[in-house]
Amino acid sequence: MSGIESIDARTGEAQPVDAVESTPETVRATCEVAAVAAPDLARRDLRWRSGLLEAMAGALEEDGDAIVGAADRETALGLPRLQGELRRTAYQLRLFARVVEEGSFLLATIDHAAETPMGPLPDIRRMVVPIGPVGVFGASNFPLAFSVPGGDTASAVAAGCPVVIKAHPAHPATSEATFAALARAASSLDAPSGTIALVHGFAAGIALVEDPAITAVGFTGSLAAGRALFDRASARRDPIPFYGELGAANALVVTRSAAAARGEEIGAGAAQSLTLGVGQFCTQPGLLFVPEGPQGDGVVAALVAATAAVPGAHMLTGAIADAYRAGVQSAAEVDGVRALLASEPAVGTEVTASLFETSAARFASAGAGVLRHECFGPVSIVVRYASGADLDAALDALDPALTFTIHAEPDDPNTPGLVDRASRAAGRVVMNGYPTGVGVNWAMHHGGPWPATTRPLHTSVGAASIARWLRPVAYQNVPDDLLPAALREGNPLGIPRRVDGTVVVGSHTGRA
Amino acid sequence: MSGIESIDARTGEAQPVDAVESTPETVRATCEVAAVAAPDLARRDLRWRSGLLEAMAGALEEDGDAIVGAADRETALGLPRLQGELRRTAYQLRLFARVVEEGSFLLATIDHAAETPMGPLPDIRRMVVPIGPVGVFGASNFPLAFSVPGGDTASAVAAGCPVVIKAHPAHPATSEATFAALARAASSLDAPSGTIALVHGFAAGIALVEDPAITAVGFTGSLAAGRALFDRASARRDPIPFYGELGAANALVVTRSAAAARGEEIGAGAAQSLTLGVGQFCTQPGLLFVPEGPQGDGVVAALVAATAAVPGAHMLTGAIADAYRAGVQSAAEVDGVRALLASEPAVGTEVTASLFETSAARFASAGAGVLRHECFGPVSIVVRYASGADLDAALDALDPALTFTIHAEPDDPNTPGLVDRASRAAGRVVMNGYPTGVGVNWAMHHGGPWPATTRPLHTSVGAASIARWLRPVAYQNVPDDLLPAALREGNPLGIPRRVDGTVVVGSHTGRA
Repeated sequence: MSGIESIDARTGEAQPVDAVESTPETVRATCEVAAVAAPDLARRDLRWRSGLLEAMAGALEEDGDAIVGAADRETALGLPRLQGELRRTAYQLRLFARVVEEGSFLLATIDHAAETPMGPLPDIRRMVVPIGPVGVFGASNFPLAFSVPGGDTASAVAAGCPVVIKAHPAHPATSEATFAALARAASSLDAPSGTIALVHGFAAGIALVEDPAITAVGFTGSLAAGRALFDRASARRDPIPFYGELGAANALVVTRSAAAARGEEIGAGAAQSLTLGVGQFCTQPGLLFVPEGPQGDGVVAALVAATAAVPGAHMLTGAIADAYRAGVQSAAEVDGVRALLASEPAVGTEVTASLFETSAARFASAGAGVLRHECFGPVSIVVRYASGADLDAALDALDPALTFTIHAEPDDPNTPGLVDRASRAAGRVVMNGYPTGVGVNWAMHHGGPWPATTRPLHTSVGAASIARWLRPVAYQNVPDDLLPAALREGNPLGIPRRVDGTVVVGSHTGRA
Repeated sequence: MSGIESIDARTGEAQPVDAVESTPETVRATCEVAAVAAPDLARRDLRWRSGLLEAMAGALEEDGDAIVGAADRETALGLPRLQGELRRTAYQLRLFARVVEEGSFLLATIDHAAETPMGPLPDIRRMVVPIGPVGVFGASNFPLAFSVPGGDTASAVAAGCPVVIKAHPAHPATSEATFAALARAASSLDAPSGTIALVHGFAAGIALVEDPAITAVGFTGSLAAGRALFDRASARRDPIPFYGELGAANALVVTRSAAAARGEEIGAGAAQSLTLGVGQFCTQPGLLFVPEGPQGDGVVAALVAATAAVPGAHMLTGAIADAYRAGVQSAAEVDGVRALLASEPAVGTEVTASLFETSAARFASAGAGVLRHECFGPVSIVVRYASGADLDAALDALDPALTFTIHAEPDDPNTPGLVDRASRAAGRVVMNGYPTGVGVNWAMHHGGPWPATTRPLHTSVGAASIARWLRPVAYQNVPDDLLPAALREGNPLGIPRRVDGTVVVGSHTGRA
């Protein structure tokens, strides 16, 4: 067993963490305890489950100063951002508590026995049940909101599943501190042993995806790492769902109407969005489509000025900063690309932002593939287009992404076509705003077709993310007293259901 | 290009079909036409789409005699069953037309801009949109309801997706006849070219799963074929969802209370269910758990008598009949298994039913794996158990399945535990009935964890099957006139939606 070190993201200083890399045997034993916990957790009622989510939120807040301090040292993201991220993380747990109590997420559906054109049908009732033990991979760039206590963990707990979390190696001390808060909350409510667990290390991650007790996996990270784990999940004797959010090269289109009306404002806004969190957002707008001509030049001038004014900052790890510098170098070497803002040479984790410019035709060409893929960090490619056809050709060359942003003035005739394209090419369409910042609510979708994610039907943020960890079961002619409460005739939980084809909101069905 | 033959399932007589095996180039071109159709289809309104489904149902009925005649010749399933299957197929299309018009399937969700503990959030609205061109593999055992015009095709059309169907080689003439009806319906409503298409041949199936324009695949068939295609779908540069329903070894448990109260009736009912359609149902109860002792003996005696009275019948193809005979032979060779009813030697497609008996301990043992896997055809294994612990050990050895059936009298103390187990081990729990016969309605779930299906979250039957072909998109601050109708503030479609966390059933939101 090798010890684990916590690295200061600003100084590189190492400190020991009171944890060790998990052996394959440890992972196996941990998953087995989760498997034993699963049916117990599944039987706990919804109110208990929402109480657990509330208790987890409260415990994180109690330990907030220590958690944020550890996270700031390990990520260099700064106290204000991390305090906000802690608020978001607690809010997410509390929203999920309300979603659980509301009960729609159970998809309770009742069809009474009936005569139909296909003959008599029996009484059939369907709801969703917890899928079983879930593996979660913490992400590097949100040490709270997408890591140990983040959306994957919160949604799996909301679904009634035990969770085995693989800590991200860039913030082991934060992982331990947040896990301790979650575990204390679970213990305070007598949750079964194995409700949540934490493992460390690269080998532990592979063992987790391949463990026979694990029934689904949540992951946020790079395309390369996500693909490797997806392949392992798919190659199992019993393949399991692997929900990977793999990042994206997110397009932001400035139409001529918007460039004319508020070019400076858009340039400055884009600069803020692309450098937010040192560019370490999955939704970072890495591709900015700007018209040629003086009005587009105004957007670019404001963009460059505002980006240049952003001071250098520390990225999450030395490896991430090195990859950023290498990506910037690769973009600079593409024919027909010129630097608008060259990042200053630096070592360690400190970097400055970069901007490049190229033509739409060049961007869409065979040799420019490197420009069309995400470079994680504060860099964007400005793609200048001369005409709508020019823009379309450049956009046709894009892979699907998490977001697609459009800036356009009212009545711009190009907007309907862009909205239609955006809805086919991305998981979220943003009008006259910026894609960074993913709200947690009922309507949010944070996903998209491959390579944005491994599963285009699902989201990793918002109330709908809970559905990833639930599978349907139908009950045929099961007597009322043997049915789960959600499906009993009298609707004792008072939840919204569909009865004989009609949505019935939280009341009795009118039958005995 | 090689010609295609239609084989008479009873006589083996071959007739030419006016179709050829599709080349890879044909498949590519067909999928490209579907890709062009996709955005056009997606823009058609819901009423047009429901009209298309209705027209398809009507066209199948118009051609009913010819379709049923071709299917009877190619499958030997008999006219009454096939006439019923046609009714089911038309009903399914019409039910989906109603589901489309009702609009809940769009999952329209609106969160107005709001102040939250995580800060101000913008206006976010989510709905689902068609995923894109869908590949469908027709199944052998339901030449109508799970083949060219079956549930996968109907649900994909309901979702607004173009469909490229790979015909099952056991019924090419039926596939052509049903496809002609669907295509005529599409043409009558000016559906775009490529709305539905049909390809033939083994190589065409592989090309379909790997085609870059195909965004998801539906399949019903064997575990081996489904696994091979799932692996190809997962290995793509851009992996796509592969919805495979792979069959199952379905358990039916007779408790002591049920054996005592109605042993003869259960024996006769199980015999009918296991031989229905010559045992060629994914939900066929292949594993019958019966108590030891005289009351269990009564169940078995009635089972054997009723099964023996079922006359020999033709299976779908010679290869399927040969596989059945080989499977029966393998079961007979397991130590500790005795034949209750030996199938008579036969050649060609004609077979008789088989029954075997073994002990629960033997069934759960390492050497008896062959008994625990589906043998497609009219054969069941009777597993005799002495105690609850004995039964539990045998059931613990099972893989997840599509169904799990329990026969028990009221107040039997064993039933709650069995229902709980069933809900964890299968997609549908059947009480005091039989698993064959899968109704099409809002509540049905036809699915289950691997190896029952490749995707435990989804069903291939019922209203919820449409969700397989839809992916969410969120719209952030998009002006009302640019939103899809389903998300506009005034709810012009009058569909059920979730607004600011509350389900609102088909009315205005109360805001301008």
